[in-house]
Amino acid sequence: MKFDRPEQELIHLLSQKRMTLSIAESCTGGLISKIITDAAGSSEVFLGGIIAYSNKSKIDLLKITQELLGSKGAVSEEVALKMAESAAEIFSSDFSISATGIAGPTGDSDEKPVGTVYTVLKYNTGKCEVVKHNFSGVREKIRFDTASYCINQLIMYLRNL
Amino acid sequence: MKFDRPEQELIHLLSQKRMTLSIAESCTGGLISKIITDAAGSSEVFLGGIIAYSNKSKIDLLKITQELLGSKGAVSEEVALKMAESAAEIFSSDFSISATGIAGPTGDSDEKPVGTVYTVLKYNTGKCEVVKHNFSGVREKIRFDTASYCINQLIMYLRNL
Repeated sequence: MKFDRPEQELIHLLSQKRMTLSIAESCTGGLISKIITDAAGSSEVFLGGIIAYSNKSKIDLLKITQELLGSKGAVSEEVALKMAESAAEIFSSDFSISATGIAGPTGDSDEKPVGTVYTVLKYNTGKCEVVKHNFSGVREKIRFDTASYCINQLIMYLRNL
Repeated sequence: MKFDRPEQELIHLLSQKRMTLSIAESCTGGLISKIITDAAGSSEVFLGGIIAYSNKSKIDLLKITQELLGSKGAVSEEVALKMAESAAEIFSSDFSISATGIAGPTGDSDEKPVGTVYTVLKYNTGKCEVVKHNFSGVREKIRFDTASYCINQLIMYLRNL
């Protein structure tokens, strides 16, 4: 089959395998979910998402502790992992995606410059794959690169499943 | 002040008035939140969103009852209202927006054709404004028209506040 857009292939693959997806987004602010739901038929396999933009929402909705936010920061491997785990649990989905990062133009530090993004793919096996990215460019590009990476990684996994 | 994009004005107005916003989206699947967080500085006023694409997520996260979903359907004034109320409560925000509808190309019925969308703006006063839309066009346009309507309505309200 030929697809015009990656998200169409993602929805096709998930539908074919009767598997579901959920998302917990921070820096992408809904973009990953938006792209996936651009595809007609996405409601069969995409269960939903949580956009945890404030720290309070990360704590209340995604069960990230104040201690973890304080010690590691919202943009960290540990928070990204917990975001993906909580999404999968909340939505009872086979797969989940999370993203937390510095999209800019502000909010950066020496340790975490603009473009620092952590993404997690939680697979149907329970395995979590964390990646630290150092994207270049402006806010729009960093957000889009983050969404594209997650969608394409999951497509590659599903093709081989 | 001049703004390139409506969402920039929205973030400016909310920041100026020190007020916050949250979102509960169904048919727009993250698009409203995505557009708002396209604007730099949005993290100061946008607390987060819930994308409740499945019925289960509407029940679990947005406290919509199975009875209401059964009697009125997910695309209804009553469900849209409860979505906005739950978002404002969950995120403790001054304003909330919700949207539920039939973006198509499938999922329609005689009673609820493609383009039927209910939006709610819950204001800082507690007042909720529900609007039933009959948008024309394809999925992408219906989703974009829904997001544009909500963002522009809130801008108009905030300009006069």
